[in-house]
Amino acid sequence: MSKYVWDFNEGNASQKDLLGGKGANLAEMTNIGLPVPPGFTITTDACRAYLETGKQPAELDGEIDEHLAALEKAMGRTLGQADDPLLVSVRSGAKFSMPGMMETVLNIGLNDESVEGLTAISGSDRFAWDSYRRLISMFGTTVLGVERDRFDEALEKLKEDKGAESDLDLDVDDFKALVSTYKGIVKDHTGSDFPQTPRDQLDQAVLAVFSSWNTDRAKIYRRQEGIPDDLGTAVNIVAMVFGNLGDDSGTGVCFTRDPASGHQGVYGDYLPNAQGEDVVAGIRNTMPLSALGDRDKKSYDELLGIMSTLERHYKDMCDIEFTVERGKLWMLQTRVGKRTAAAAFRIAIQLVDEGLIDLDEALRRVTGQQLAQLMFPQFDAKAERDKIAKGMGASPGAAVGKAVFDSTAAVEWAARGEDVILVRRETNPDDLRGMIAAQGILTSRGGKTSHAAVVARGMGRTCVVGADELRVDARERMFRTSGGVEVKEGDLIAIDGSTGEVFVGDVAVTQSVVVDALLAQAATGSADEASRKVEGEDRELVNAVTRLMEHADKTRRMGVRANADTPDDAQRAREFGAAGIGLCRTEHMFLGDRRKIVEQVIVANTDDEREAALEKLLAPQREDFLGIFEAMDGLPVVVRLLDPPLHEFLPDLTELSVRVALAEARGETDDEAASLLKQVQRHHETNPMLGMRGVRLGLVIPGLFLLQVRAIAEAAAELLKRGLHPEPEIMVPLVADVKELAIIRRQAVETIAAVAEETGVELEFPIGTMIEVPRAAMTAGDIAAEAEFFSFGTNDMTQTTWGFSRDDVEAEFFPRYIEDGIFSVSPFETLDVDGVGRIVAIAAREGKQARDDLVIGICGEHGGDPASVHFFDSIDLDYVSCSPFRVPVARLEAARATLDRQDSAANRSGSDGTA
Amino acid sequence: MSKYVWDFNEGNASQKDLLGGKGANLAEMTNIGLPVPPGFTITTDACRAYLETGKQPAELDGEIDEHLAALEKAMGRTLGQADDPLLVSVRSGAKFSMPGMMETVLNIGLNDESVEGLTAISGSDRFAWDSYRRLISMFGTTVLGVERDRFDEALEKLKEDKGAESDLDLDVDDFKALVSTYKGIVKDHTGSDFPQTPRDQLDQAVLAVFSSWNTDRAKIYRRQEGIPDDLGTAVNIVAMVFGNLGDDSGTGVCFTRDPASGHQGVYGDYLPNAQGEDVVAGIRNTMPLSALGDRDKKSYDELLGIMSTLERHYKDMCDIEFTVERGKLWMLQTRVGKRTAAAAFRIAIQLVDEGLIDLDEALRRVTGQQLAQLMFPQFDAKAERDKIAKGMGASPGAAVGKAVFDSTAAVEWAARGEDVILVRRETNPDDLRGMIAAQGILTSRGGKTSHAAVVARGMGRTCVVGADELRVDARERMFRTSGGVEVKEGDLIAIDGSTGEVFVGDVAVTQSVVVDALLAQAATGSADEASRKVEGEDRELVNAVTRLMEHADKTRRMGVRANADTPDDAQRAREFGAAGIGLCRTEHMFLGDRRKIVEQVIVANTDDEREAALEKLLAPQREDFLGIFEAMDGLPVVVRLLDPPLHEFLPDLTELSVRVALAEARGETDDEAASLLKQVQRHHETNPMLGMRGVRLGLVIPGLFLLQVRAIAEAAAELLKRGLHPEPEIMVPLVADVKELAIIRRQAVETIAAVAEETGVELEFPIGTMIEVPRAAMTAGDIAAEAEFFSFGTNDMTQTTWGFSRDDVEAEFFPRYIEDGIFSVSPFETLDVDGVGRIVAIAAREGKQARDDLVIGICGEHGGDPASVHFFDSIDLDYVSCSPFRVPVARLEAARATLDRQDSAANRSGSDGTA
Repeated sequence: MSKYVWDFNEGNASQKDLLGGKGANLAEMTNIGLPVPPGFTITTDACRAYLETGKQPAELDGEIDEHLAALEKAMGRTLGQADDPLLVSVRSGAKFSMPGMMETVLNIGLNDESVEGLTAISGSDRFAWDSYRRLISMFGTTVLGVERDRFDEALEKLKEDKGAESDLDLDVDDFKALVSTYKGIVKDHTGSDFPQTPRDQLDQAVLAVFSSWNTDRAKIYRRQEGIPDDLGTAVNIVAMVFGNLGDDSGTGVCFTRDPASGHQGVYGDYLPNAQGEDVVAGIRNTMPLSALGDRDKKSYDELLGIMSTLERHYKDMCDIEFTVERGKLWMLQTRVGKRTAAAAFRIAIQLVDEGLIDLDEALRRVTGQQLAQLMFPQFDAKAERDKIAKGMGASPGAAVGKAVFDSTAAVEWAARGEDVILVRRETNPDDLRGMIAAQGILTSRGGKTSHAAVVARGMGRTCVVGADELRVDARERMFRTSGGVEVKEGDLIAIDGSTGEVFVGDVAVTQSVVVDALLAQAATGSADEASRKVEGEDRELVNAVTRLMEHADKTRRMGVRANADTPDDAQRAREFGAAGIGLCRTEHMFLGDRRKIVEQVIVANTDDEREAALEKLLAPQREDFLGIFEAMDGLPVVVRLLDPPLHEFLPDLTELSVRVALAEARGETDDEAASLLKQVQRHHETNPMLGMRGVRLGLVIPGLFLLQVRAIAEAAAELLKRGLHPEPEIMVPLVADVKELAIIRRQAVETIAAVAEETGVELEFPIGTMIEVPRAAMTAGDIAAEAEFFSFGTNDMTQTTWGFSRDDVEAEFFPRYIEDGIFSVSPFETLDVDGVGRIVAIAAREGKQARDDLVIGICGEHGGDPASVHFFDSIDLDYVSCSPFRVPVARLEAARATLDRQDSAANRSGSDGTA
Repeated sequence: MSKYVWDFNEGNASQKDLLGGKGANLAEMTNIGLPVPPGFTITTDACRAYLETGKQPAELDGEIDEHLAALEKAMGRTLGQADDPLLVSVRSGAKFSMPGMMETVLNIGLNDESVEGLTAISGSDRFAWDSYRRLISMFGTTVLGVERDRFDEALEKLKEDKGAESDLDLDVDDFKALVSTYKGIVKDHTGSDFPQTPRDQLDQAVLAVFSSWNTDRAKIYRRQEGIPDDLGTAVNIVAMVFGNLGDDSGTGVCFTRDPASGHQGVYGDYLPNAQGEDVVAGIRNTMPLSALGDRDKKSYDELLGIMSTLERHYKDMCDIEFTVERGKLWMLQTRVGKRTAAAAFRIAIQLVDEGLIDLDEALRRVTGQQLAQLMFPQFDAKAERDKIAKGMGASPGAAVGKAVFDSTAAVEWAARGEDVILVRRETNPDDLRGMIAAQGILTSRGGKTSHAAVVARGMGRTCVVGADELRVDARERMFRTSGGVEVKEGDLIAIDGSTGEVFVGDVAVTQSVVVDALLAQAATGSADEASRKVEGEDRELVNAVTRLMEHADKTRRMGVRANADTPDDAQRAREFGAAGIGLCRTEHMFLGDRRKIVEQVIVANTDDEREAALEKLLAPQREDFLGIFEAMDGLPVVVRLLDPPLHEFLPDLTELSVRVALAEARGETDDEAASLLKQVQRHHETNPMLGMRGVRLGLVIPGLFLLQVRAIAEAAAELLKRGLHPEPEIMVPLVADVKELAIIRRQAVETIAAVAEETGVELEFPIGTMIEVPRAAMTAGDIAAEAEFFSFGTNDMTQTTWGFSRDDVEAEFFPRYIEDGIFSVSPFETLDVDGVGRIVAIAAREGKQARDDLVIGICGEHGGDPASVHFFDSIDLDYVSCSPFRVPVARLEAARATLDRQDSAANRSGSDGTA
């Protein structure tokens, strides 16, 4: 039998799934003896049952009766008792905090009779009637669906009529009049009177909280935050305590540490003679928490003691809501407090140093996302700046550039070498070229799932959206702020993608001190060394980051390599702590001056012509590899043989067609262009992504891959002769069938042997393959027979598994898909575990089954995505490879993934043990 | 312990895996008491062990000793015994016949001594020395690797010197001289003498047969025929009998029925005083088998008796090799005989009528491939024809058209409405456009895996390759035959893709009588009715086909539907016995006159503009569905909502760019074109196959799918009012995530309800989805919650699973891949079971697990491919859907698949029972 109602003294903090975050923490505080008003929690099970069936579960009514009776007994009065009413609040509380999304009703139990009882007990008729009118408006809005404005307007009108400046100027008669007006509004809206039976009020409020789970507002919030839709909310019924019973009463919020810096101390606000909602509404100015100490030392000291208890109990910074009712302190809520990225690191290390948690636990408290945020270039804290607006930070970073107002201008200015910020009211797929060309994107409309936000995040472009103080006039190529500042095309602006701030003029950008520290740490191998050079506030942060990274490297099971194509990138990767290169793409090596030679390879009419062209590429290719192997000396470098479609090396069909047609129209003949056009037409592909590329190209033009293999082997031989330790690994792209790999492998082995023979150096390199199409994954057991390693190309795997190409659809329909809730995040950003992940897991498992010593990595962009890193760890990959800048993030998350698995293993064995 | 050698009296016909086809049948014949020369078989296990390790298994030598001793004992003489030598043949015999691919050595046991013994025993020194020189040349070629030409040249030279016209003109001294010359050749080539020890000869010959499994020739053959590489061959050691011991000896081959017509009777050839190899070599003209009766009635009658025994024993037409040695009949080989498609059907039914097999077994004896061959249009048997060449039939059909010699001409002539045959020396990817435009393709070079052959089969174009009597001169636009016939561009030619024949001038083409009969059968429901109208030879065939189809329909578990987009196609499908339409594509409905309206939908600037354009499409769409539903009244019609990418409805980017550029160059302004160009650029996709199509389009332009749903609903309502029984099913394409389907489903249900309301007709249609990208398959369990049916789109699934698009790669690299052995058949022709099949199977299983009543079909082109049909049956699909013309093939193969499964279930329970 389900138990749908839990008294606060029955539950504990671990039951967030069932009791919601608020309920579980109220129970926890009750159990450790803190002064929590009595109450009980209706579970998320009850909510889910209601949402599924549209009816509350049969047992619920009886259970509420029972727990309400217990509550009444504890308080010595009954709900709405005429002479001494017990009042309760009804508050939602889901597993994950959804601030402002869900519903609350206070003062349940007041009616025309009990308001008199409250008057008598509180000794204040003004308070009693104020409370009553608050109930009617909250209940009316939340439970009965009356527009909030109707109550607000009535209040405003009364204040106007009375010449009152604030609610404090209203007297009891005014509130009595308001109660009467509000009742009229309710009757007008619902056709019925405001319910006078306290238990009816309670029951209706509970169902209203249940229903609030599925409002559009709540759904959109969950989608943005990635909270599952099927959790449901719990409902907390708590005996009311009042902070507005006079000057010896009040309400406040506080943190056990500074949520911005992490520093210990007393951070919070206090508002005397007020209820919590007044603080939230911001109607009156709050005082610093210390003001409570001046007014009520006993309560203040008790609060400080409780804060210390909570921090030691939760072993983390807590965020607290409390009320003082006539000198008696009551705890209304606590939870682990939200904090900035920098504070997260600082607090974690502080707690370690205070002996409250160990380094493992500290790693659990910080995220790769936070580390990434700390690594972005930032506006120099000391630089002057002229803030003109604030929107939402949609994609982090600090960008400075000249304002442009359409895609064409963005592309043109960028082509001239100018940094630009693309400013639009909102973006659409037409703006994509401009977004790519720009340093940053600024819109005056839209939220975190708008087109601009989604696309910018996907591209890693700094972006601020919804800066609604801006009036953007694209035709006039300018915007004006509500403060009257005008910015024209070409004027310099700066945007902060984390804070959402917009500045006019230049703002100096600096590399993050965290990046400096990570580089110093990698160079010296010491966390201390890294922090020694930094001063003040930052030293603490840098110390925290480097110490946690040191521990992360000791903790993690998975290796972290980097994707790097040039000696500079390789150097950078190494500096960020990469244990090798997981993906060295070779396509850029065929562009620039060499493109013409590649063109000759493609359009060659005979084998001799083709080989002559290939021959010309050998020496430069060897130089490419010499540089990279040298930079990564002693570490593995996975070289991917040429992957992109042939046509990328040929001129654009449309442009060339136009050129030839125009020449013909002028009566000129351009034989070379005409002949080239024929070749381009011949090699034109409808879907180049699905065309002649990767291993297919290698099989159809065998010399191409062998040229690369030879260049790798010759470079390695030369370095070995110089006493270095090159460790190339050769990766064949786009394999779908083991036979493709077997043929290339055989040819490559022969070529390597030939170079070994020629140079007199012993050469042997691992040869492996990308697993990037589903067929390769489905036949991974076979492919493993010919591969010493696998590397998952999760970008292409995502494209083929979903059947969409990133180029074509990301800008076109992803924003729409995110709005419709089909994605909560782009599958190119975070690996789609259910689809792509399942395929990857099958391949990893069957690959290892077929070959014990198979090394398996992943080199798609997902390698640097925190959530994806955890998935890759869970399926036993050996390493992830990501862009150099993401290497620290991957190192941190790999360690957190190791801890995750230890935790779940421990939980499993725990639950096995008790079962 | 392995048993590597089996005496003929130990094995039986079911042991083909172990003993090879020849060995198993020799054992079977021995056991039923037929006169087989004594012998034994070395198993394929021994061959595989040898090929894997390079050494023969240790036990083999002893086992050969033992069986050889038994053989010698039975024959009363020992191998190579000087005064009365036992001679043996050593013949390969794999599981599947590989004619001419493997090796044979006769007369093992002859040496300088035993040749005298053979002389004494045979009474013919000429015979003995002829046999000896045959041994040396066969052994030299096969075992020692001497070039066959060297022996042939020596023989030719001798004949020249002697002025001999044939071998028969040579006398014993000539053969003695040849033996001496041949020995010299062996010594010269190997450095050693020809081995004189009989047992050495035997051992070396056995290993040579083992090794012959892995010659290039054998590998290529296996690849072409789809025979696995790891089977290995068995080796048969058989006591020699001689058909060349005089006029009372001879050799022959025969069939128990006519392999062309299936008619009963005595079909075969006989050659007196000859050995089998003489028949194969075609040196002397054979006589009809009846000649044996004239010469040796006893042997002839015995042979007829044996033929009858074998047919009753094997319950099938057999093909036999025999030798008569001095009036004694010996059986050297038998196997189930190869036959034409028509004979396969005729024989199967004849055997049923003779009570030898039942109808189930008859179904096992015919294939869908054979039925398809009988259904192709054929050259009218009575039509005059002028045959000028013969190549290989590479893709069946009968095509007539004007000869053209390049792709451009093919396209131009075809555009004028001419039927053309593209004639090339060989084709390459540049010829693709021409191949598409042509009725047929004819090449003078290349084999069955050449580019032309592979691509033509893939496209279903009639094709003849390797007609090497043709000299094709593309520059002069003509070809000349070796017979001197000249054909110029525009001259009419005809090609038969089954026989490989090439004709000049017109040849009348008729619809196959089998197609007539199948239509008549479907129309009347009677097999007899169908055959009654046909006369002569064909009546028997038609009777066989229709009776087997009748039984197939009773036997099969899977349903067969057709892919049809128009009322005519639907009608045709119904006539071929389809139980509904499994795929009605709607894209063509948006082309032609309506393309302009679709363009308006796409380029619409406002919702109103878009809806106005959509509105215009409603009435014509409704008409489309009215026609199709009426044609398929009472049967389900799966309508796939619009699938292709948007850009297909817009002008080509390159063409439009050229047009706009040229207009600009002329100083003209074409605002409309310029504005259209902008839209085309906006919607241009790099990879349209992976772009905005299918459900993505439906979600981004919601009105589009709803227009279609409304048209379906309105059409159904109208027909229901008229008393008909439309059964539309709505299929959403390209779904990858259940949420996509859920949204469209909800909208569709609302629209159908609205139409029901408007028309007052009760409407409810199943709504389902294509499963055509791997992600859909991997999450099929989730998707099933929103789908009443699945239909696998195996074309797209093949493209996404392999990561190649059919358009782009089939012509470019498939021929190469088939040559390299990566494919044995295009995965677009026969489903790739290991990759795509595995994904499909996962989806089918998990879909049904999630939803009991889920209906699952397949509507890719694989639905009409025999091998694929068996796979679909094995994973429990409910139906296959294919082109109307393939429906009978699918019906037949579905029945055969049902029998297959019964057989394997029976085998499993059988082996369980004995285990």
